[in-house]
Amino acid sequence: MTENDLVISLDAMGGDYSPRVVVEGVAIAHKNNPDIKFLLFGDETKVNEEMKRFPQLKSFCRVIHAPECVRNEDKPSQVIRNKNTSMYMAIDAVRQGNAQAIISAGNTGALMAISKMILKTIQKVHRPAICTNIPHKNGMCVMLDLGANTECNAVNLAEFAIIGNILARHTLGIERPKIALLNIGAEEMKGREEIHQAAKMIKSTHLDLNFIGYIEPHQIGEGYADVIVSDGFTGNIALKTMEGTAKLVGGMLKTTIKKSVMAKIGLPFLIPVILKLKKTMDPRKYNGAMFVGLNGLSVKSHGGTDALGYSYAIDNASKLVRQNFVQTIRDEIEHVDLDELSQDILYDVY
Amino acid sequence: MTENDLVISLDAMGGDYSPRVVVEGVAIAHKNNPDIKFLLFGDETKVNEEMKRFPQLKSFCRVIHAPECVRNEDKPSQVIRNKNTSMYMAIDAVRQGNAQAIISAGNTGALMAISKMILKTIQKVHRPAICTNIPHKNGMCVMLDLGANTECNAVNLAEFAIIGNILARHTLGIERPKIALLNIGAEEMKGREEIHQAAKMIKSTHLDLNFIGYIEPHQIGEGYADVIVSDGFTGNIALKTMEGTAKLVGGMLKTTIKKSVMAKIGLPFLIPVILKLKKTMDPRKYNGAMFVGLNGLSVKSHGGTDALGYSYAIDNASKLVRQNFVQTIRDEIEHVDLDELSQDILYDVY
Repeated sequence: MTENDLVISLDAMGGDYSPRVVVEGVAIAHKNNPDIKFLLFGDETKVNEEMKRFPQLKSFCRVIHAPECVRNEDKPSQVIRNKNTSMYMAIDAVRQGNAQAIISAGNTGALMAISKMILKTIQKVHRPAICTNIPHKNGMCVMLDLGANTECNAVNLAEFAIIGNILARHTLGIERPKIALLNIGAEEMKGREEIHQAAKMIKSTHLDLNFIGYIEPHQIGEGYADVIVSDGFTGNIALKTMEGTAKLVGGMLKTTIKKSVMAKIGLPFLIPVILKLKKTMDPRKYNGAMFVGLNGLSVKSHGGTDALGYSYAIDNASKLVRQNFVQTIRDEIEHVDLDELSQDILYDVY
Repeated sequence: MTENDLVISLDAMGGDYSPRVVVEGVAIAHKNNPDIKFLLFGDETKVNEEMKRFPQLKSFCRVIHAPECVRNEDKPSQVIRNKNTSMYMAIDAVRQGNAQAIISAGNTGALMAISKMILKTIQKVHRPAICTNIPHKNGMCVMLDLGANTECNAVNLAEFAIIGNILARHTLGIERPKIALLNIGAEEMKGREEIHQAAKMIKSTHLDLNFIGYIEPHQIGEGYADVIVSDGFTGNIALKTMEGTAKLVGGMLKTTIKKSVMAKIGLPFLIPVILKLKKTMDPRKYNGAMFVGLNGLSVKSHGGTDALGYSYAIDNASKLVRQNFVQTIRDEIEHVDLDELSQDILYDVY
């Protein structure tokens, strides 16, 4: 591998169906990204066994043995200093400059903790966040945090708004993103105290953010906001509820059609439309949430995804690498004095 | 109105489109419930103006003038002691025994605060909760809390599990309901601390609850659990996300079909199926969340619902009255020593 290669480091043991899904995912992603090289960290025997099914992988994949792996039930504190796990080694490859991004479908808490420790947080950022782009009826919007920070205070939320603003401009190309805080009502006193305080903070920032106030979850799909800010618990609940509801509606449509002779006659005409819609709504397509705020690109794949979903995580990570995403965030944050901002804001609010 | 009449008291000024939607909702509900009488509290002139469009309402509705009304932006503390609001007067009709249930589409916080103050909490219950039944792929499940308690501790959550158990048995007829805590992961250490503690509490109760652990939001639609317990903020986020996603998927299907000539040919065959599904998934059908834990039936209608949605809230409230729901809850709770339970549990956990 030469210096100019695009290299992605993979935690081959992370996820519910690893290393099978990881290896298959690489095979799929390779078709659209023939220039990417991969480092696969994991149990050498198991990974090589899977690799046998795809002999073409040998030319652009290197398997590096990792004697241990992080389990879903491990607490981040238990595994953060274990240098022998596939997750740790895969992240460390980015720090060493051997890869430009790391992807893991493993334990989210551990991935965040180890990524933070190894890659370090960008100066001025207090809390990295997990972000992804989700579809609404007219396009896409950025959602953060999706699970890195179970509890957040007002300063954290205000900081996410600033980071989200940068994300929407660079990943979605929206010049002046509309920013909203996710809440359970539109009125000022609705919801939790930290959300009220964050709203005051964002309004009072000297940054020229296009803050539109609170957004309720049923309005996300309407496309009112380009950036949706919440704590990681709430964001994760909302994201997983979307996934489940879309699946439920699709499943119910299928069951109802099966019961109707009439519908079965009309169905063949609609199949292209249904397939198109399924593709648009397919959660696998949006797989690969990024950890924003780190000095390196760390991407979380859904733990239960299949090979196609995993390949999308690779696609998404490679796009961010090609956009020089981490440097962009670093440059933009450079111009924002988050520390001073928090102090200004705190002074205003309390 | 005689002593045996089923009387429902309505806050005719609550909701985004009141009193129009309330009056129209009564007209619709009357068709299925010709035996119900209504007390409509609100601005006499405005309510009577709306009533003109439905002359038949005169025979089973009584309009009672309320000089003021609670606005969405009012804090509960500002309005709780104002006896002149339509909301206060409507609730007070239940306390006085003039009605068996109150429905409001107004300010949720105020409705809960005034209902609690006037109707009082059932002895032993610490925090009343907002509950509703929602559809999953094989039937229905009970979700609580949906917004009464923005922040909850472990004892509150454990208590909701007990209340939810009673609800699922009586409103859904499930003999041994499967109870789950809503969380962002299946592993023990995932999510917030109060959820972990609540799990330990529920497991250690001497009540024989069928507790199945954590449920993630994308699993709700699978029907794994009959009772889904969360704090009011999280429950409200999940519920509104479901509503929004179902609408988004439906809207996208419509848009995609419109663009395809083929689909337009097949569509007429599928219309009955789509209408049936739309009916099953229609959030208006599930309108009318109940406040459980009070000495009286207080029902919250969605603020933005239309007349059909409002009529469903009336239907749902009347069913609960006919089932003698409040008395059932009171009797069941009688046999559970919640206070002692909390102490036992706290002792176990800390």
